[in-house]
Amino acid sequence: MRAVDLIQKKRDGLELTKTEIEWLIKGYVAGTVPDYQMSAFAMAIYFKGMTTREISDLTMSMVATGEQIDLSAISGIKVDKHSTGGVGDKVTLILAPLVASFDVPVAKMSGRGLGHTGGTLDKLESIKGYQIEIEQEQFIQQVQDIGVSVIGQSDKLVMADKLLYALRDVTATVDTIPLIASSVMSKKIAAGADAILLDVTVGEGAFMKNIEDARQLAQTMVDLGKAVGRKTVAVLTDMSQPVGTSIGNRLEILEALDILQGKGSGDVSLFICELAQIMLSLANVEKSIEEVRAHLENGLALKKFEEMVVAQGGDVEDLHRSVKVAYEVDVFAEKTGYISGLPALEFGLFAMKLGAGRAVKSDDLDYESGIAFAKKVGQSVEKDEKIATIYSNIAITNDMISEFQSHIMIGDSAVEPKEILEIIS
Amino acid sequence: MRAVDLIQKKRDGLELTKTEIEWLIKGYVAGTVPDYQMSAFAMAIYFKGMTTREISDLTMSMVATGEQIDLSAISGIKVDKHSTGGVGDKVTLILAPLVASFDVPVAKMSGRGLGHTGGTLDKLESIKGYQIEIEQEQFIQQVQDIGVSVIGQSDKLVMADKLLYALRDVTATVDTIPLIASSVMSKKIAAGADAILLDVTVGEGAFMKNIEDARQLAQTMVDLGKAVGRKTVAVLTDMSQPVGTSIGNRLEILEALDILQGKGSGDVSLFICELAQIMLSLANVEKSIEEVRAHLENGLALKKFEEMVVAQGGDVEDLHRSVKVAYEVDVFAEKTGYISGLPALEFGLFAMKLGAGRAVKSDDLDYESGIAFAKKVGQSVEKDEKIATIYSNIAITNDMISEFQSHIMIGDSAVEPKEILEIIS
Repeated sequence: MRAVDLIQKKRDGLELTKTEIEWLIKGYVAGTVPDYQMSAFAMAIYFKGMTTREISDLTMSMVATGEQIDLSAISGIKVDKHSTGGVGDKVTLILAPLVASFDVPVAKMSGRGLGHTGGTLDKLESIKGYQIEIEQEQFIQQVQDIGVSVIGQSDKLVMADKLLYALRDVTATVDTIPLIASSVMSKKIAAGADAILLDVTVGEGAFMKNIEDARQLAQTMVDLGKAVGRKTVAVLTDMSQPVGTSIGNRLEILEALDILQGKGSGDVSLFICELAQIMLSLANVEKSIEEVRAHLENGLALKKFEEMVVAQGGDVEDLHRSVKVAYEVDVFAEKTGYISGLPALEFGLFAMKLGAGRAVKSDDLDYESGIAFAKKVGQSVEKDEKIATIYSNIAITNDMISEFQSHIMIGDSAVEPKEILEIIS
Repeated sequence: MRAVDLIQKKRDGLELTKTEIEWLIKGYVAGTVPDYQMSAFAMAIYFKGMTTREISDLTMSMVATGEQIDLSAISGIKVDKHSTGGVGDKVTLILAPLVASFDVPVAKMSGRGLGHTGGTLDKLESIKGYQIEIEQEQFIQQVQDIGVSVIGQSDKLVMADKLLYALRDVTATVDTIPLIASSVMSKKIAAGADAILLDVTVGEGAFMKNIEDARQLAQTMVDLGKAVGRKTVAVLTDMSQPVGTSIGNRLEILEALDILQGKGSGDVSLFICELAQIMLSLANVEKSIEEVRAHLENGLALKKFEEMVVAQGGDVEDLHRSVKVAYEVDVFAEKTGYISGLPALEFGLFAMKLGAGRAVKSDDLDYESGIAFAKKVGQSVEKDEKIATIYSNIAITNDMISEFQSHIMIGDSAVEPKEILEIIS
């Protein structure tokens, strides 16, 4: 077999066999198929796509290039959750303990943030003492003991994805559905869960800018999950504005704690309860929204979160303290009306510049900095009423406030935001 | 500037600026733009094409990555000729001295053969003593003195093409018109001629399999030549059957000598006279076909060829001797009718297996071996009449004869072959 013939086959829009795809991925990881052939192949996929069968074979070939976590020691159906990334996305922080509080085990590996998007790992690391790197045995033991653990992804999973992702990043072959889907799903499958909830974010602040692309990606991943024997459901969720009321690592931990105590804003609480309901259902546990919400209000979800923090070395006392920053600056409405837009991308980048996010992978984070919104899209606002507070350890100039204000969109009539746009199963 | 952004720009079908293209090519040759970015870029070009302006900028950027031959010391308009490759293509051997016999200087660099296609250099090297590697000063001096020289291409021309061609070969990005056109034309421009005749071969034995693709490539190269100030004409020529009556290095030299003495088959002689007429016209020398043909019949073209052979160290006595092989096997017609097809690809590969061509670049050649056809497409043939003679230093088995015969197509009615299919200027 020659790589050039397989590249040409894809270039000419033909379907590759399982053997061909396996040969290519194995050779790529072994170094016998060089980067320059893989990048041409990726570009051919960008233009010619892949069938569901090809994507399944690609995904499983990638899975085979690394460790696969064996969660069989944990009894019950293990449900994983993945988000394609967003701004202010603290969903996992609440969802994992909430689902676990119903005795459905959650053994989850998460990632870090980059650019305007945040990462669950960074948020957890903002908790004093919380360990995200723990041994696999300990990880599984913790889920057996308390039902939940969220750790960093093992760097031994899916070697092909690490190589391929880095290559795609510099060859303009990132945004192609077969490669996004196989990248996400190979990691989820290698992580060992029986069922997967995919949160496919849509909007300017997300990877998928429009609903059609998001729907296609979601459907591809759902088909793929099923093809390889994993129950998979995808939700398309809105990322035109940040999730919830805060952006920033410690600020989001505090908001998560509020939601875990039933004190979060109604919209985001309902949204998370809906996701929890789907995850529970994937584990064959059918609950009403009210039953799910009860675990926020009766403290069971919070208790589970605190158990997890303690089990992973976190300081529960420090957990609940407010943020400590040098500057807290309120931003006020410039006119009366309704908030019609809080563009997630713009505010994600603003928070990044405060130190809450990374411009490049090697950047250090300022866990305390960020933005807390007092108003969200759809709410009415009076001129000079507070819309948000900026928390920062760097001085906030007037220019920065002007920039911040320029991103706030105030209209004449109320718009109704919607968190879950579609469910694809 | 970042290569990934330029790849993405092309991937998205946008036009790159001259500065962007120059930056990419310069970086590629310098090693700062790696192969894996260049191959993704080439694949994006495969799908999205390039405008004439982009192809011109690409070509001139490539020219700038190597030596450029300065032919200004030679007075008059220097006309070059390039063929996209064929089977039995001895045209340059006759055309160069024929044009030079009208005092139009021909300073030409040629290439070697690969696979089923032959190369002018190999044919010249089959002449005892003929030197294809001579110093640039000597090359120019020879053209000043006798008006003609055909040598091997300097390996210092167009560094970008060497790298890019090797990369395209293993990434399924060879057959895309912008990259073929820039590869051909960058070398022609670097070789210093004022005007260029392009022989774009069409058919199973050629790089371009159909007339539409050939026409598009020819038009692209003609536009490109004009855009960079070189008078350029392209002819689309038939490569469904071999050119002339022979395939094989020494056999083609002998056929060339016949044609140079006005003894060649009528079709191929006329074809070459037509090409010569175009080349002369590019140098502002207008001649009728009869005037051109006269130089074959009065010996002036042959004299010029012999002058060139002598000037480059060749043995003129040895030049005219017949081929010396261990086996000469005649092949006869299996039925009466008209020759309707002698597929160039099949006979090119057959000759290659005799040793007349190379399967891989490092193969040694057997200059003496090859095929001489007694019949060409369109001619009538009686059952058991001789169609061809195989010249070989390896024993010809009955299987080989059967294979040879299976490629000969004999029909019921005469078809009329046509050498020049179209002229594009």
